[in-house]
Amino acid sequence: MQLAQVVGTVVATQKSQRLDGLKMLILRPFGLDGKLGSGYLVALDSVGAGLGEVVLYCTGSSARQTEATKDRPADAVIMAIVDTVEVGGDVKYQKGKT
Amino acid sequence: MQLAQVVGTVVATQKSQRLDGLKMLILRPFGLDGKLGSGYLVALDSVGAGLGEVVLYCTGSSARQTEATKDRPADAVIMAIVDTVEVGGDVKYQKGKT
Amino acid sequence: MQLAQVVGTVVATQKSQRLDGLKMLILRPFGLDGKLGSGYLVALDSVGAGLGEVVLYCTGSSARQTEATKDRPADAVIMAIVDTVEVGGDVKYQKGKT
Amino acid sequence: MQLAQVVGTVVATQKSQRLDGLKMLILRPFGLDGKLGSGYLVALDSVGAGLGEVVLYCTGSSARQTEATKDRPADAVIMAIVDTVEVGGDVKYQKGKT
Amino acid sequence: MQLAQVVGTVVATQKSQRLDGLKMLILRPFGLDGKLGSGYLVALDSVGAGLGEVVLYCTGSSARQTEATKDRPADAVIMAIVDTVEVGGDVKYQKGKT
Repeated sequence: MQLAQVVGTVVATQKSQRLDGLKMLILRPFGLDGKLGSGYLVALDSVGAGLGEVVLYCTGSSARQTEATKDRPADAVIMAIVDTVEVGGDVKYQKGKT
Repeated sequence: MQLAQVVGTVVATQKSQRLDGLKMLILRPFGLDGKLGSGYLVALDSVGAGLGEVVLYCTGSSARQTEATKDRPADAVIMAIVDTVEVGGDVKYQKGKT
Repeated sequence: MQLAQVVGTVVATQKSQRLDGLKMLILRPFGLDGKLGSGYLVALDSVGAGLGEVVLYCTGSSARQTEATKDRPADAVIMAIVDTVEVGGDVKYQKGKT
Repeated sequence: MQLAQVVGTVVATQKSQRLDGLKMLILRPFGLDGKLGSGYLVALDSVGAGLGEVVLYCTGSSARQTEATKDRPADAVIMAIVDTVEVGGDVKYQKGKT
Repeated sequence: MQLAQVVGTVVATQKSQRLDGLKMLILRPFGLDGKLGSGYLVALDSVGAGLGEVVLYCTGSSARQTEATKDRPADAVIMAIVDTVEVGGDVKYQKGKT
């Protein structure tokens, strides 16, 4: 599992029926230094994540283990909105603070 | 899941029967800066994607979760044709515009 | 499977119900030279691992093969706390020594 | 899925019984510029591929979806011998031509 | 699948019960030039591999397809001890010769 920040959205009308009704969000990797890494991925949302939030996502077949994503043709899902990230006693991220 | 642009095709007559009747397309990674990344992959098409279109694909066992790709020996499938990509309030891609 | 050191924790209240009651730990890769590599990942804990311990984790669908993580939307799990790492006759790591 | 060229073979007598009777081929990645990339992998053959041929392979659980590789402990399989690779209107590879 | 050399062992007493009785070996990637690559991984052994031997391993769910590793929380397994590696007509490795 990785931490990431929600930075955008993907909209598609012509798609597999099994993706109907699911939000597709663009994520950028969240570094432990608080900076966003390079690259990005697109993940389904199972928890109502919003733009700017730091989230936890998982990939592969595990991405189909939430109620929302069972049997979906998707290899990444957001399954938690992060409150706190703590490393070596230091709070690296806390929701609502910047 | 990743965004990519359809740039080519692969044709093969000598192949697993389970690939019969499926189009195999060559994809190059689509960057959020609108440029294509290096590298490429081959994906099955489940939505009628055409050359030049920006698509969403997924990999691994999730690639077998569309009607078209169930039980197929394939680890990548296109399951959406992208209309809009929006990041940080900016439209990074819109279908039909260049 | 990879070796890693437990360096931190992630807390999230808004999450998939299937993650309830599971500790989410931050791991950094453990090199055979005894140094931590760059990057990190978040893994579920199935063995009661603590901060600073060197652990073994696995990823993908295999991460759902412990009693604790069956059917969970998680792609990484700690399934062993390491006692000894030996390479080419040299002990590279021994629990309790630094 | 990726394109690759068959460059060699691996022979092993002491192995999982479930690998009996299957050819193990060494593949090197095939670039769209017609050059072989660095690195290599070993794949099971399900289509009678020969040395020098350009093939399509897939990885992960999808590699177990051919008749030949069902339930095998193998994470890569060749499931097509490529006739033509076309990118942007140019034929990048055609079987039988060099 | 990849070739690797067995270079070490990992011992852990506090672990998932499903790992009981299985040897955990440290592997380093084996290059076609006969040199070991950087990095390493830990794999379960299903064939009685010994230190110094060149082996074939696979990863992901396929690692659970040997008799020894069924339902185990492990994402890498050694399923063959390599006798010969041949590339482009040259023997790159032969068991028992150095």
